[in-house]
Parts: sequence; structure tokens; C-alpha cells
Amino acid sequence: MNEILEEMGKKAAIAKQDMIRLNTNQKNHALRQAAAALMAAASEILEANQTDVENGRKNGMKKSLIDRLSLTEDRIRDMADGILNVAALQDPIGEVLDMSKRPNGMIIGKRRVPLGVIGMIYEARPNVTSDAFALCFKSGNVVILKGGSDAIYSNRAIVKVVRKALEAAKINPDCIQLIESTDRNVTAEFMKMNEYIDLLIPRGSAGLIKATMENSTIPVIETGTGNCHVYVDKNADFDMAVKIIVNAKTQRISVCNTCESLVIHKSILSEFLPMLTAALQEQGVEIRADKECMKICPELKEASEEDFYTEYLDYIISVKTVGSLDEAIEHINKHNTKHSETIVTKDYHNANRFLDEVDAACVYVNASTRFTDGNEFGFGAEIGISTQKLHARGPMGLRELTTCKYVIYGDGQIRE
Amino acid sequence: MNEILEEMGKKAAIAKQDMIRLNTNQKNHALRQAAAALMAAASEILEANQTDVENGRKNGMKKSLIDRLSLTEDRIRDMADGILNVAALQDPIGEVLDMSKRPNGMIIGKRRVPLGVIGMIYEARPNVTSDAFALCFKSGNVVILKGGSDAIYSNRAIVKVVRKALEAAKINPDCIQLIESTDRNVTAEFMKMNEYIDLLIPRGSAGLIKATMENSTIPVIETGTGNCHVYVDKNADFDMAVKIIVNAKTQRISVCNTCESLVIHKSILSEFLPMLTAALQEQGVEIRADKECMKICPELKEASEEDFYTEYLDYIISVKTVGSLDEAIEHINKHNTKHSETIVTKDYHNANRFLDEVDAACVYVNASTRFTDGNEFGFGAEIGISTQKLHARGPMGLRELTTCKYVIYGDGQIRE
Repeated sequence: MNEILEEMGKKAAIAKQDMIRLNTNQKNHALRQAAAALMAAASEILEANQTDVENGRKNGMKKSLIDRLSLTEDRIRDMADGILNVAALQDPIGEVLDMSKRPNGMIIGKRRVPLGVIGMIYEARPNVTSDAFALCFKSGNVVILKGGSDAIYSNRAIVKVVRKALEAAKINPDCIQLIESTDRNVTAEFMKMNEYIDLLIPRGSAGLIKATMENSTIPVIETGTGNCHVYVDKNADFDMAVKIIVNAKTQRISVCNTCESLVIHKSILSEFLPMLTAALQEQGVEIRADKECMKICPELKEASEEDFYTEYLDYIISVKTVGSLDEAIEHINKHNTKHSETIVTKDYHNANRFLDEVDAACVYVNASTRFTDGNEFGFGAEIGISTQKLHARGPMGLRELTTCKYVIYGDGQIRE
Repeated sequence: MNEILEEMGKKAAIAKQDMIRLNTNQKNHALRQAAAALMAAASEILEANQTDVENGRKNGMKKSLIDRLSLTEDRIRDMADGILNVAALQDPIGEVLDMSKRPNGMIIGKRRVPLGVIGMIYEARPNVTSDAFALCFKSGNVVILKGGSDAIYSNRAIVKVVRKALEAAKINPDCIQLIESTDRNVTAEFMKMNEYIDLLIPRGSAGLIKATMENSTIPVIETGTGNCHVYVDKNADFDMAVKIIVNAKTQRISVCNTCESLVIHKSILSEFLPMLTAALQEQGVEIRADKECMKICPELKEASEEDFYTEYLDYIISVKTVGSLDEAIEHINKHNTKHSETIVTKDYHNANRFLDEVDAACVYVNASTRFTDGNEFGFGAEIGISTQKLHARGPMGLRELTTCKYVIYGDGQIRE
């Protein structure tokens, strides 16, 4: 293994044991200190960020990416506020579940404990740096960060400030470490540090997530790709359906819980489709539809099978016609990414069947898919949205960054 | 992909949707029918098993393995009883956690649902076949089994009987499928069926588990390797310590929760070690000790560093001397397999520190490591003991074979 990574891993292993000994008050104090330090060092961070932004411009970075990369005084305040919000959340560590006394007198409980060391791989958003630190730290974990090379000056400045604040609070600063190398081979080695890292979380584009899933030997939580559907049932309230679809598609175009594909019951097509088309076109949304739809609205563009698998993250939506709820469920389960799915219906039985039989992290009746979010669900913070089934599914808060250990209090019990 | 596997995967996908529609009564009825069918078909199963046993003898199979492979009328009754026990357990599916009404009126709950399709890879114990079926079926999952080729006739007979019982109960028999090929390439392909399988559980030797972890692209739960320690603290009750160590080492020699290594505080060595040595030697246990021990009991065999990493599954135990609790914790965290660890102590502070700082699925004060077991913990049944941190840790019961989905009941909510 790369020497620098090995060194970081060893430091993380020590910091992990130190973290276990911190109580909630100590952690919250350190988080508040880190938030204050970020504000105090704003000019230093902005200067570093300026270097990243200039380099980005020189390298022809897209305008939207430059925007994500750029920090301002306000954005630094948001980062600090984010840390304070996490400080205010309940500490999941130490909670004991299902404690009971066994017939032989042993007391057994399941105690919530930190995972240990979490690796984060992300792209050019410097705010992920402070965000990830706050969530990992509050849940008692050490974090090793690998941010995008485009944001390296910003990330270095942020991590430096946080580490200094931790040191001042007499906490091992190695509970946040940044991989400073921008060498791709180092990233590849980072993904194989099983000896030191318990969980790897990629945050960013579908490409980044896929590459991490394929190359990591450390357990990964798959986050974020969302080919989300709205199914408009035979007995839907049409006005509600249009409102939900327009919201789910256009309220924020570039995020994973945005609706990318519609499924519509055949029997309502002739009445509903023109209404819907008008509303979507008013928002500038291009519709790619199947043959059934084109019989009614021949001006629409025809959808290919590939369209039904596509997460556009753009002003485009696909439409599929089905003859029954069964067909709708089958179509969704085949094409979705197991993220968020909605049925719009007035039918009790169909609503329940949709909730039961659609395979996704979040299944909705009569609401926008845009609600799939840690804050909207009331978790206070979110480290990502898991689209896998193991360990964590749906919006991941502090609790999803923990594991359990069984603690057993005996007084000499042996097994007969 | 191999055509037969592809076919099995497709059938499993259909069976998975059928399973979702079954309620607990239907599942329990089918389990009871399957148990009765196994008893009724005992002679047929014994005959098939006879072929396996004869082949095993011809191929020079070890006596201990022949014993694990051999079925008797009693063992078939045990298998049937095992299925009935699972039928009597509470159904985890459908439980809703943390349901609440959000400020905008949406009701959000976290519903426990099946994982989907579970793959099991195991060796020459035919009882795992019925066991795995019962646990997966009760938790609403489809199971695809890959048993050891040495048990292929027995497994085929058992699966045939269970499938017939399911059909009679009007349940899709494809919710249990057996890979009949004994070709190693097929097993390798089975481990890469991500499209169809949600979770792979290997059960058996350390070699099987390692090979599965390394070759599978499907999420795997690592089970069973146990390099478990007993630490005897400065303030231990010596009689209790000896009783616990003898039990943890010798009560059943070949299982993962057996103690393989001791850690002893230096200050008690001269008084405690001779007592312990006498008790262990009486049970025929060979002791491999460090230099400090050999100063006191020079007749002991010297331990190598490798010994401290070894799961013997035999009448051998290693002993390490430490100067402090810190050293003990460090030694254990370095050498253990994160399975089960015990401290024997009368000291309140040390007991708590051990529980906090030792990294393992199960940490004990003053009790034998042999209790790490689904039945002993009160889960009623167990599919394995997870030594990893994600998804499941420690003895895995029905609940660990499930995942969650968020269900959201709205009445037209959109995100502002």
C-alpha cells in the first residue's frame, strides 16, 4: 500500500479508539468550536477556494461545476450552520436496544456503537467536506476524505481549520484526515484499504458511484441514482396528478429524487395526457412517449426502450402507458433504480398494492418523490440516499453511520 | 451467464413477487406442511443420503465429515422440528418502525420487508438445506441453495419434498431452488448473479467463507470465523475464570464461539497460571504460551506470533501475558476476528472499559463466549453469526434477513 495511505490508516486506527472514549458533550463542544473556527477563518478559506476556481476556469470547467465549487462568505456560514445543526441532533451512540435478562441470569443488550473509520469519496463540492466531518464525528466515527482534485485547495483549507479546532478542544485531530494526493492510483488504493476502513461512501455523479462500487473491496453504500416514477392510476385525481408530476419533475431538475418517468393507465390517457402535456410543456419539459400516447398527442417525441432506463437530470421525461396496475408495477420494478416511486390514486386497494409490491427505498401514495430527503423525513441531516437493501435504505442519517455490538453482563455463567 | 442459473434467477424473481403477497398464516401453514412432508418422506430421504454417504466413503471422506453428512430418522425429525420452531416464531415482515406525521401532513413509516432473493452456499450438512429454507421462507425471501457436492443426493431429495409440500399448499415452489450442478464454474457464476440475488450467505469452513468474500460481487455476510479470547483481569475471581475458560474452550471444540486464546494479567500469573494449566491439561488441552508464562510453567510449549492469530478448532489454546488492561484490549483488537470476547473481573471500571473498547460482535463480562448463539440469545433460530459490522452483527435471526422500505401516505403534498 502507498506509504502515505498506510500512515493515515494507522493514525485513523488510533483516533478510532480515542473517539470511543468521548461523550456527547465533548463531541458537541468540538463541533461548535469547529463551526466557529470556520467562520473565523473565512478569508483564508475563500482565498484557497479562489485558487481552485481559477484553476477550474483555466482547465475549462463547466459553468455549473464552477458554481458548485465556488465558496462565498454566505456558503461558509451555511457550512458552519450545518455543523451546528448536527451538534444539536440526538447522539445515536450508546443507545441500547432489546435489553433483556436471559433465563440463566445473563443480561444481554444490543448497544449502538460507531462503525469505526468511514471513507468518503466525492467531487467538487467543498461543503461536503465539513458536512461529512460533522456527521461522522457526531456518530463517533473517524473520517478519511478524498475530495475531487478540483477542490483540493479549498478542502485542504477547511480540513486544516477543523483539525486545529479539534486540537484546541483536546481531541485527536486525526479523526478527520484528507487525502491530498490527486493521483488516480492513490484513489484506487484507497478503495482497497479494508484493513483500516469499515465503510466507503461515494457521493456525486453516477459515474463516481459506479466506479466505487466496481473497484472497492471495502463495503460500499450505493447512493443516489434515481430513475423515479409517478404512476397515474385509473382512479386518480387529475389535478393532483398534474401538480405532483410538475413538482416531482421540475422543482429541482438535477437531483436524484426528481421524477424521470411517468406511467399512465390506458383508460385515462385520452383525457389526462393533453392536460399533462400542456402543463409540462409550459415548464419547458420535453416528453418522450410510447406509441399509445402518440396516438393521442402525435406531436410528442417517441421514447426508445433506453429512455425508460434513463435518469435525465434534465428537462426531459419519458411516458409509458399500461393496461393495469400489475403492468405498472412490473414496468417500474424492471426500470427503476430502487429509489422513490409514487402512485396517484383514489383507490384504497391499488394504493396498498403499490406500497407492497413496488421495490424501492421509498414508496409514496399521492405525494411528490421530491420528499425523499433526510431533512424532509425529519432526520435533521443526511449523508446520502441509499438505493441498496443492506445496512441502510433510503435517506441516511446519523443512525445509518452506526453498527451494534451485543454487550453481555454475566456473573460466572457457563454453557451446559 | 449459465443458462440454468439464468432460468433459476428468472423464476426466483417471479417467486419473490408471489412471496410478498403471502400473509403470516399462509407462510406458517406451508412450513408445517413442509415439516410433515419431510417426516413422511423419511425413507426416501434416507435412501438418497445413503448414496451420498457411500460415495463419500469411496472418495475417502474424513470420518468427522461422514458423520456430518449422515442422516438418520432422528436427524430428519430434528430437521422437521426445526421447521416447526421457525413456524412458531414471530413474523418480522410488516412491522412498521418510527411512523410519524410530518408537519405537511404526510405520514411516513419504515416498514420491514423481505430482502428478496437470498443465496446460500454451504458444505456437507444436509440439515442446512431445510434450516435455510425455513428461515428464508418465514422472512418472506426466496432462497437459492448451493450445497456441497458431497450431499447432492440428500439435498435433492429434501428440496423435492419441500417443493411438493409448497405446491400442495398452493405456493410457488420456486421460492426454494437448488443448484444441482456440482461444477465449480457454476458456483463461481452463482456468486456473480447480482441481477437476481440480493444477499449471499456462506455457511461452513473458513476457506468457503473466504472464497465467497473474495469472489462474490453480490453483497455477502461474513459469518463464523472465531478467534475468541478470555481476558483474566488482575481482580478476577480465579475459580470463576477457570470455570469459564474450561467451558469456553472445551464444551464444544469445533465451533466458532469457542475460546482460542487467553490473555492474563501479569500480576496474577504466578498464582493463577498453575491452577489454570492443571484444569486445561485435565481436559487434554495443549497450551501454547508466551515467555512470561514459561518462566512460571517451563513445561509449556512456546507460542509463535502466528498462534495468536489461529482459530484452532482443536484441543489447543494460546496464552498471552499483559501488563495492563490497555495492553489486553490492544492485543485482542489486533488478533481477534471480531466475534466474541470475555473479561473475567471484579472491577467495575475495567468491566465497562472492556465492553466499550473491545471491538467485537459480542463482548462479555464474566460469562463464557459459548453463549454467542441465536438460541442462547433468545432469537429462536439462527442463520449464522455475522462478524462484520454492516447490516447484521452477531447471531443473525429472522430480522437480519429483512430490509426496510419507507412508506409515505400523502394527500397531494408537493415540495415547496
